[in-house]
Amino acid sequence: MARARLRHLGIDIGTLPPGPHNAITDVAGVRVGFSTLIADVPHVVRTGVTAIWPRTDDPWTDAACAGAFSFNGNGEMTGLAWIAEQGLLAAPIAITNTFSVGTARDAICALAVRQQAPVPWLLPVAAETFDGWLSESETFPVTTDLVLAALEAATDGPVAEGNIGGGTGMICHEFKGGTGTASRVARVDGAAWTVGALVQANYGSRELLRVDGVPVGQSIGRDTVPSPRPRPAEAGSIIVVLATDAPLLPIQCQRLARRATAGLARVGGIGHNSSGDIFLAFATGNHVRQGEAISTLRMLAPEAMSSLFLAATEATEEAILNALTAAETMVGRQGRTAHAIPLDLLAQAMRGRPG
Amino acid sequence: MARARLRHLGIDIGTLPPGPHNAITDVAGVRVGFSTLIADVPHVVRTGVTAIWPRTDDPWTDAACAGAFSFNGNGEMTGLAWIAEQGLLAAPIAITNTFSVGTARDAICALAVRQQAPVPWLLPVAAETFDGWLSESETFPVTTDLVLAALEAATDGPVAEGNIGGGTGMICHEFKGGTGTASRVARVDGAAWTVGALVQANYGSRELLRVDGVPVGQSIGRDTVPSPRPRPAEAGSIIVVLATDAPLLPIQCQRLARRATAGLARVGGIGHNSSGDIFLAFATGNHVRQGEAISTLRMLAPEAMSSLFLAATEATEEAILNALTAAETMVGRQGRTAHAIPLDLLAQAMRGRPG
Amino acid sequence: MARARLRHLGIDIGTLPPGPHNAITDVAGVRVGFSTLIADVPHVVRTGVTAIWPRTDDPWTDAACAGAFSFNGNGEMTGLAWIAEQGLLAAPIAITNTFSVGTARDAICALAVRQQAPVPWLLPVAAETFDGWLSESETFPVTTDLVLAALEAATDGPVAEGNIGGGTGMICHEFKGGTGTASRVARVDGAAWTVGALVQANYGSRELLRVDGVPVGQSIGRDTVPSPRPRPAEAGSIIVVLATDAPLLPIQCQRLARRATAGLARVGGIGHNSSGDIFLAFATGNHVRQGEAISTLRMLAPEAMSSLFLAATEATEEAILNALTAAETMVGRQGRTAHAIPLDLLAQAMRGRPG
Amino acid sequence: MARARLRHLGIDIGTLPPGPHNAITDVAGVRVGFSTLIADVPHVVRTGVTAIWPRTDDPWTDAACAGAFSFNGNGEMTGLAWIAEQGLLAAPIAITNTFSVGTARDAICALAVRQQAPVPWLLPVAAETFDGWLSESETFPVTTDLVLAALEAATDGPVAEGNIGGGTGMICHEFKGGTGTASRVARVDGAAWTVGALVQANYGSRELLRVDGVPVGQSIGRDTVPSPRPRPAEAGSIIVVLATDAPLLPIQCQRLARRATAGLARVGGIGHNSSGDIFLAFATGNHVRQGEAISTLRMLAPEAMSSLFLAATEATEEAILNALTAAETMVGRQGRTAHAIPLDLLAQAMRGRPG
Repeated sequence: MARARLRHLGIDIGTLPPGPHNAITDVAGVRVGFSTLIADVPHVVRTGVTAIWPRTDDPWTDAACAGAFSFNGNGEMTGLAWIAEQGLLAAPIAITNTFSVGTARDAICALAVRQQAPVPWLLPVAAETFDGWLSESETFPVTTDLVLAALEAATDGPVAEGNIGGGTGMICHEFKGGTGTASRVARVDGAAWTVGALVQANYGSRELLRVDGVPVGQSIGRDTVPSPRPRPAEAGSIIVVLATDAPLLPIQCQRLARRATAGLARVGGIGHNSSGDIFLAFATGNHVRQGEAISTLRMLAPEAMSSLFLAATEATEEAILNALTAAETMVGRQGRTAHAIPLDLLAQAMRGRPG
Repeated sequence: MARARLRHLGIDIGTLPPGPHNAITDVAGVRVGFSTLIADVPHVVRTGVTAIWPRTDDPWTDAACAGAFSFNGNGEMTGLAWIAEQGLLAAPIAITNTFSVGTARDAICALAVRQQAPVPWLLPVAAETFDGWLSESETFPVTTDLVLAALEAATDGPVAEGNIGGGTGMICHEFKGGTGTASRVARVDGAAWTVGALVQANYGSRELLRVDGVPVGQSIGRDTVPSPRPRPAEAGSIIVVLATDAPLLPIQCQRLARRATAGLARVGGIGHNSSGDIFLAFATGNHVRQGEAISTLRMLAPEAMSSLFLAATEATEEAILNALTAAETMVGRQGRTAHAIPLDLLAQAMRGRPG
Repeated sequence: MARARLRHLGIDIGTLPPGPHNAITDVAGVRVGFSTLIADVPHVVRTGVTAIWPRTDDPWTDAACAGAFSFNGNGEMTGLAWIAEQGLLAAPIAITNTFSVGTARDAICALAVRQQAPVPWLLPVAAETFDGWLSESETFPVTTDLVLAALEAATDGPVAEGNIGGGTGMICHEFKGGTGTASRVARVDGAAWTVGALVQANYGSRELLRVDGVPVGQSIGRDTVPSPRPRPAEAGSIIVVLATDAPLLPIQCQRLARRATAGLARVGGIGHNSSGDIFLAFATGNHVRQGEAISTLRMLAPEAMSSLFLAATEATEEAILNALTAAETMVGRQGRTAHAIPLDLLAQAMRGRPG
Repeated sequence: MARARLRHLGIDIGTLPPGPHNAITDVAGVRVGFSTLIADVPHVVRTGVTAIWPRTDDPWTDAACAGAFSFNGNGEMTGLAWIAEQGLLAAPIAITNTFSVGTARDAICALAVRQQAPVPWLLPVAAETFDGWLSESETFPVTTDLVLAALEAATDGPVAEGNIGGGTGMICHEFKGGTGTASRVARVDGAAWTVGALVQANYGSRELLRVDGVPVGQSIGRDTVPSPRPRPAEAGSIIVVLATDAPLLPIQCQRLARRATAGLARVGGIGHNSSGDIFLAFATGNHVRQGEAISTLRMLAPEAMSSLFLAATEATEEAILNALTAAETMVGRQGRTAHAIPLDLLAQAMRGRPG
């Protein structure tokens, strides 16, 4: 059975409509790129890099507003001291594996140098989840060039999912995990704001997996589809990047980022001890341009945030599920196999759901 | 149909077993007390105070470890600067309505004076949710004596739920809300740790309410059971207090507190803008006694925290649902009615659930 | 020798010029009021309330931006969860003694009710420092009316200092402390922004006191001027409120609040364990008006913040010193005496300073 | 005149005695290593790496407690999400230049792999300050091998200062900056605890520089010793690493880290906008060993923390000044010169100080 997005399986979740691509790229100007490295010699490698550009025009000098939240900090996202301080993001983001997040981070600096970005220094955001169960990540296969390739490959439009980019070697709820995306459109006071999510999903235990509230993970037990053990079942992490075109202040982006928690919890995440559940939200609706003595920003009314919170929750939830339904079974180091969630069994489990 | 706890309705949720009372008092030494004020003259008042004592012996001088988390800070919990700084809790906690949280806070100081607690000053924890839709809270009906009554009434054993104490005038997911409690026992490395939750539930929109994943709030729509409007549907807040007998450090209590978010999200909370979703966790398994030059603490291994996280998630989830199923329909100011969730309709909605 | 402000003693500190009143009220619209309670029967009481209104027009519905920082959280400032969440302040602030901060907090709600502020509820900021060494604060002498009196007495123009309002019973660096204020004007890119500070100074050890770098506290030792012992020498706290007319976002107010630390450290504060060193900054240059779907805010360029940081540092430093030089020797409970810093000895100590 | 440590110039500051080396290595088990890269071809490079090992025995599996604080987050310190979550540190720390902090971070992972550390992954701490004014850092001269060299060179005993390791190309208060260290011994309740500081000092404006309160920066103006302009005078950052042998909990390490702010402020730091002022504190007095179901920790009484706070403040202050007095004038890219602070002028400026 071919892999598919959740909605293509007839499983619509949430209450708000998705954007045209049901992807983070539904936020105008946001671009996503991947580089994927799958090799068996000299090392068994299943890894890659995912790149997200917040803005197409003047990406190094026209900052978006941004905020972050760490639900469980057993992970790395660089650049967070700066995001917490200034709430500004004027550089692309990279997501890769745990051992290479530094390489990814410095590579963004290298790109800024190469592109002659008019900034003296840079404090870029790079994040990670661990792919060492499938991939010999301790051989440090991610190079600066691989990161640059992802950064340079970024486009708008539909976004590939599953075993791609930084999500290549991931495991989620003891099924094959990976990259996923989704979006929602929130209508407030006559305006329509898009919230998009992109996740690198590598967390969770089987028994807690829920799809639209249905305990699918209990239906498709480890006897039916083996868990990739002896890896500690719930080890791993999830990175969530939220984008919106709404005019949010930095402090409001922090609020939005925190809502990825609700989306994660709906699917069954509880922030296991070993999980690096770190979320970043950026808002392109405001512009803080280099050199302006005073920038003018718009601030969405606090009351209107509730709709965006719901959008962020639903987009995160669906992005994780898209990662699961898109990812394909993968064989990695030492012949280890991470099985994709069987879509027929998923459909079967969902049939009984109320509503 | 008589009100009941969720489990008495045959709805068992979660994967871990509850403690003997399925209440926060399953954590040894924890006591809960209430004072409730329901009056129609001279003002229509539906309010009260809930008190929680972390420890029975030496409560003013033998500190428990503690940590807090604000998922959405449109609320008040006093004492948090001190909890963030020292991570210690050596005083009872009070929860009441928004306009009276200061009175509740100072009353704890007054009790310390009265009991000649050997401390020069105190920075107690008092929290609130807003009951002004049912109660004329702007008449400031909560007095120091009412707070002291709750503090002095505290006992161990079963805990009353629904329209009692601080939860008296609450509304939750557009049904009558209130006070709820639950507990879970987590077994790790041969040890059994109890995590208990007590909530004052006053948040949420109807359509997002889920019980064990089932979209009950959509089944029991506003045409079936009216929403207490014109109140903004989702206005309100939730206070969650988590207790555990596990030997946690302050920083681990912060982690535990953060997990109330997952329990809340399972029921349908997304941290609406107007919601003060503030969570406190304390751990009685360690003792920091006044006057000790060096205290000896035990620290549960990081890996073992995952089980406690699941316990905190499930206990919070069930405590909220207990508040809903225990609360009775209430008529308040201006004849406004907050309808309890009909237990027959709930049972009916749950019948179809898979698993 | 009559008490005086630092500058009147010929001691000019810092590099930036003060505003016309050298007070927090140099920020247009900011008003300060006091109520002071000094009595010997039935209890020896040395206490009071300080009130600060951020804005004169539409104070309940036209929010200023705000942010806070706790350098050492052994203190209370209510309302901080909300400030952290929304970064908005649309209510007056009160500062009083430790046991009465709840009363002060609820009294602000009471004033909102009385003034028919069009808000359903309120999460006001009230802060405290401990005056129990001089005052029988355990008798809870601060009433709602005393708080309302301070709130209603607020005016612009010069601000009284020393033994007044919430600062009445304070001790600072083992001299008599109290209320102090100062301001600075920062010029950036052709614009002039005012930063004002108001402190309630009740912290610090004698030996660490410095005035413009000069170790005055070592010059005026405990043998010359007795310390108010056996009170633990450094017990106490400091509340700093910073105001500015600069157009800052909430996140920038957080940054500004953090700089009170530098001003405090210059005088000799290190955030002793027992000290509640909590700082609030608000910026009136932006307006977030109730009911606006989208507000328009201006944001000062990040680079321009450095000048404001210096202004906040210097204003805090001088406000503390003004509290010291303005406060008069006070005799309190049990005949205890808190001696004012002798201005002649201060002048003598400063004579040798370089520069 | 040969460069020297501050104390060797006869300038003793603070009230507590230093340890035997007056260095971070006075904390038993702490080791420091450097690798320095000074080259003119093919690129003008003035950079390096500083490594700090918290513990000599079982460094990968016997965690110290740790906590961090960002006074101004215009900088990078990786690993902080994990430190905030778990408060544990079981790996060496690296400090280098801004563009290479990722390389330094990943190199610590590489060392763990090479040494077969029994951990599946690692979230190491690497920090940075910017040396691009003197060094062509945009050529990315720091390699994994250079980082490993610093890590492997670490020793206990005296620590080199000034133009060495990560501090090689630094500028501080518009003089040549660099690496500095100092320590203090705090006696509490009959016990002696050592607090050591190591700084990479690259921040500050000339006019704000103070040595023991004396405005030395104003005495030695830019006409006497040119400032390294047109670099924005105050651009830069400071990383402070504090170590102690006291038995602190993670939350207490956070408190200690925050005190570096007071030390920095005493010298004249105000957290300029462009400054990444990020501080880490670790405590070796507690051990959290991998595989323990429950670890036993000791916790220093809260009241005893004040002495450690003073020690942290003084050690930070003196470490910065040691960086200044040890650093030698350096010529870098484009013939730019960063002048060392002239020790004779410093001595002259200090002569007038009171006390």
